[in-house]
Amino acid sequence: MYRIGIDLGGTNIAVGVVNEKYEIVALHSVPTGASRPAAEVIRDMGDAVEAALVKAGVSIDQCESIGVGSPGNCDSEKGVVTRAYNLGWFDVPICAKLQSRFGIPVRLSNDANCAALAETVAGAAIGCKNMVLITLGTGVGGGIIIDGKIYAGMRSAGAELGHMLLVLDGEECTCGRRGCWETYASATALIRQTRQAAADHPDSLLAQTAPADVTGRTVFDAADAGDAVADAVIAQYCVYIAAGFTDLVNSLAPEMILLGGGISRQGERLLAPIREYVANNCFGQKDGAIPVIKAAALGNEAGIIGAAAL
Amino acid sequence: MYRIGIDLGGTNIAVGVVNEKYEIVALHSVPTGASRPAAEVIRDMGDAVEAALVKAGVSIDQCESIGVGSPGNCDSEKGVVTRAYNLGWFDVPICAKLQSRFGIPVRLSNDANCAALAETVAGAAIGCKNMVLITLGTGVGGGIIIDGKIYAGMRSAGAELGHMLLVLDGEECTCGRRGCWETYASATALIRQTRQAAADHPDSLLAQTAPADVTGRTVFDAADAGDAVADAVIAQYCVYIAAGFTDLVNSLAPEMILLGGGISRQGERLLAPIREYVANNCFGQKDGAIPVIKAAALGNEAGIIGAAAL
Repeated sequence: MYRIGIDLGGTNIAVGVVNEKYEIVALHSVPTGASRPAAEVIRDMGDAVEAALVKAGVSIDQCESIGVGSPGNCDSEKGVVTRAYNLGWFDVPICAKLQSRFGIPVRLSNDANCAALAETVAGAAIGCKNMVLITLGTGVGGGIIIDGKIYAGMRSAGAELGHMLLVLDGEECTCGRRGCWETYASATALIRQTRQAAADHPDSLLAQTAPADVTGRTVFDAADAGDAVADAVIAQYCVYIAAGFTDLVNSLAPEMILLGGGISRQGERLLAPIREYVANNCFGQKDGAIPVIKAAALGNEAGIIGAAAL
Repeated sequence: MYRIGIDLGGTNIAVGVVNEKYEIVALHSVPTGASRPAAEVIRDMGDAVEAALVKAGVSIDQCESIGVGSPGNCDSEKGVVTRAYNLGWFDVPICAKLQSRFGIPVRLSNDANCAALAETVAGAAIGCKNMVLITLGTGVGGGIIIDGKIYAGMRSAGAELGHMLLVLDGEECTCGRRGCWETYASATALIRQTRQAAADHPDSLLAQTAPADVTGRTVFDAADAGDAVADAVIAQYCVYIAAGFTDLVNSLAPEMILLGGGISRQGERLLAPIREYVANNCFGQKDGAIPVIKAAALGNEAGIIGAAAL
């Protein structure tokens, strides 16, 4: 049997037909057109499912389920996207609509949760029962796996791990609170920290070589060129990431924490100092429940695979 | 059938015989004598079990299990107290020892986890599947219930919720880290905050009426007498508690958070401002997954009942 995974994004709808090894055997992608009514987007999702099935040479009868990974808040139990600002969706009963069209079970979860689940079935955490995936991007996304299943709590509203405190009343966060972890550890935060360091040290290589359009890579490029100011920004950024990881160790004691998002491609230059900080700061320090900390393995396909695995 | 619950404390061993309604039908308590070898303490625990059974008029054949709630780190899977500083115990295989004496299953968990479980079977959270109990005392203790069971993570080392950050690099914590929640929200922290406020405001009623031996009640007594400085200390203390609660909402989205420990007897004067802060600061604010927040119902008996329910 096969499973269908739909990664519903603000820009594209990506549908994959996935085999029992969680390999994508066919892929079909269409623009979301998020400004349109939800019913039209859902119709296009269904059409994309059919197109992907044709590409795969698989019929819907050979598929046991459809999974949808959606941005925003999703009520998995009810199959409803409760709040997805970048889609303009509020209380959209997506599972019922797709189920009535295809006649097989349709399941729903948040995209960050799907990415975490994908890593446990086909990525860096295969067989891992309790793990957390942290994705550094515009914000800090989180997915929690407990007992091999997504844990999202009441109304599937949990695992907003980027919105745990790092500093009470600290930097302003988009969520309305101050001092959330993501205001220090997101890629957005790193860009802000890079700009600030360049402004504070106008003679640094960082300041002199930084493009007008600073990205998450800028500070790493300057460090590669031997700039000590850039090194210091990266070291402090690792502390911000690792402090949140330490909170996850002390609260959830997962077997593994995976780091995802574009910045995670920096690999050991982030992971090594993060591991050291966690070992020095978690409860029980080096005798504590130190998890495996490594980079996520799945890239863009994580959303489809995780949705298929729901 | 009955169950036996043992609350192993640094001062006393309290054994209860518990019926199917989780009522304690007989209780027997002996001093721990924690300075002695673990084998002697475990022998006394066994003797106390027998004494409690005699008091209850129940034979061991009528009991399906023995549960032990221990301070410190416990590996529930292995049945071993891995680290309990106030007992001086390291890697003590308590379950195997009691099981060989009594011939029925013996289970083990941390006392904070037992207290949380007790609330779900016989306290303020009956029937609640996902909840967190926070106990304010010398430190901030935590117990997490997921799907009706204790969640403690790898090597049962999780749920050290008092050791999540409130302020990166903030107040020094006994765990070796800085800025842990418990350095702001424990009863110990409230006493420090009370002393500091009295020192900063020597003309206040708080400063003039505070006993030499400030306790967790001192600031509430001064507030009752109309002191504005005391009111401000309490208001800030509620923010410290509520900021941690907000982190629990954003990460775990539990259905309920219970407040335990002596200070929780202050009831609504703490709970009302905590609820308001959580509703204003959690992800999604008033539309967020706001849990029921109330006081724990079980006092000293929580440890026995929770251990029996393991």
